[in-house]
Amino acid sequence: MAKKPLILVTNDDGVNAPGIRALIAVMNTIGDVVVVAPDSPQSGMGHAITLYSTLFADPVKIDNGPQKEYSCSGTPADCVKIAIREILDRTPDLCVSGINHGSNSAINVIYSGTMSAAIEAGIEGIPAIGFSLLDYSNNANFEPAKPFVKTIAQQVIKHGLPEGIVLNVNIPNVNYKSIKGIKISRQARSNWVEEFDKRQTPQGKNYYWLTGKFVNLDEGKDTDEWALENNYISVVPVQFDLTAHKFINELKTWNLND
Amino acid sequence: MAKKPLILVTNDDGVNAPGIRALIAVMNTIGDVVVVAPDSPQSGMGHAITLYSTLFADPVKIDNGPQKEYSCSGTPADCVKIAIREILDRTPDLCVSGINHGSNSAINVIYSGTMSAAIEAGIEGIPAIGFSLLDYSNNANFEPAKPFVKTIAQQVIKHGLPEGIVLNVNIPNVNYKSIKGIKISRQARSNWVEEFDKRQTPQGKNYYWLTGKFVNLDEGKDTDEWALENNYISVVPVQFDLTAHKFINELKTWNLND
Repeated sequence: MAKKPLILVTNDDGVNAPGIRALIAVMNTIGDVVVVAPDSPQSGMGHAITLYSTLFADPVKIDNGPQKEYSCSGTPADCVKIAIREILDRTPDLCVSGINHGSNSAINVIYSGTMSAAIEAGIEGIPAIGFSLLDYSNNANFEPAKPFVKTIAQQVIKHGLPEGIVLNVNIPNVNYKSIKGIKISRQARSNWVEEFDKRQTPQGKNYYWLTGKFVNLDEGKDTDEWALENNYISVVPVQFDLTAHKFINELKTWNLND
Repeated sequence: MAKKPLILVTNDDGVNAPGIRALIAVMNTIGDVVVVAPDSPQSGMGHAITLYSTLFADPVKIDNGPQKEYSCSGTPADCVKIAIREILDRTPDLCVSGINHGSNSAINVIYSGTMSAAIEAGIEGIPAIGFSLLDYSNNANFEPAKPFVKTIAQQVIKHGLPEGIVLNVNIPNVNYKSIKGIKISRQARSNWVEEFDKRQTPQGKNYYWLTGKFVNLDEGKDTDEWALENNYISVVPVQFDLTAHKFINELKTWNLND
């Protein structure tokens, strides 16, 4: 029998979040699982790394599954780095991040700790997937997502992924029968219209809370937003070469060296 | 006489860093300058935003220049959001971030607070540039960079930038006469080989410091790394549509819906 794949699991909602518990349960049916996840929620951390403080990574036992688990004081990207360099004894066959409580579709991929962990693994040459469910609540129902998460993970193990590419998977918040299937998509052009809730401290000093409304600016039917609005699971291949190659030739015509 | 351009200046090393002082001095020769920058260093923060704590943005006076300045308790991306929504009375004509103390070339763009501020402005439709000097020290010499920073900023104001694209500018740490010019480049394929310095607390608990060595894996002569190694300033057009469009058709052939 072939050796079982080694699967690294992480997230940005913290090692105790229901979403990572669901992801671990699925991965235990596919391979040998090691969890290295933040000890507290890290949402909105983008691709932060910890340069100027110490990192802890302590073994923990959270449920009765067969996985090994570590609780790490760092960001999602830190978790992947420390897992690869210090915890795992070989390179994992797959890294999965999530299941995030809330969407990482469209422009949200930029702010996403879930996706930063997947990208960090991708930089290391490890096939990687970020999973997110469109329900921010702590008691979100991850059961309908599980069979799809399993299929996508198995397909990535089977096919591998090209160098420089990871997958961003978002799952609509509906029951199993309502999910119409999986759509390969592109990142929708979108925006957050932020509003700052301006308040005063008891001492009379101004401060702000960041709030905002997501706006989809893209009418294409090939986007992740369209897929999700129509009860499909969106799968966007994501690259971390950020070069806008198409603009290079035009930029070369500017008078920058005069 | 045409109205002077409104220029938003930010960074990730903090409002008191020498690099942002140099950038402000240059921008004061081009337009009306408003500075909204972090009150403390934010390096390695990636595209973090502050969702779960309060934000302060207080007027400050740091030098004798004509610019207005605000010191903000948030990340670089927060600074841009709060500037646009709460501080500025019109949309700026340009947003510049930096000059960062240290490189943001190659894969470092992913971890860069400097570039996250530029990208945040780009998402808002504002032409934006991140500037970085390849010298991490606090007493780095920004003088040789200044004429080039001015030229690039002026050209961006003149031409504008296409939707979805910002510029990542890195400047070699050499004297003015040694800078050979400006090269439009692509992001080099590269990696950090992290090492974790493992230590023990006085109580005997393990902890880690993240350290590492940058490795350029790309032999191309059209990369930012090549430009910098050969004493050119690199200018990489950066996009925040992360979709790996070239992989979409292949991904559609996988059996994801069986």
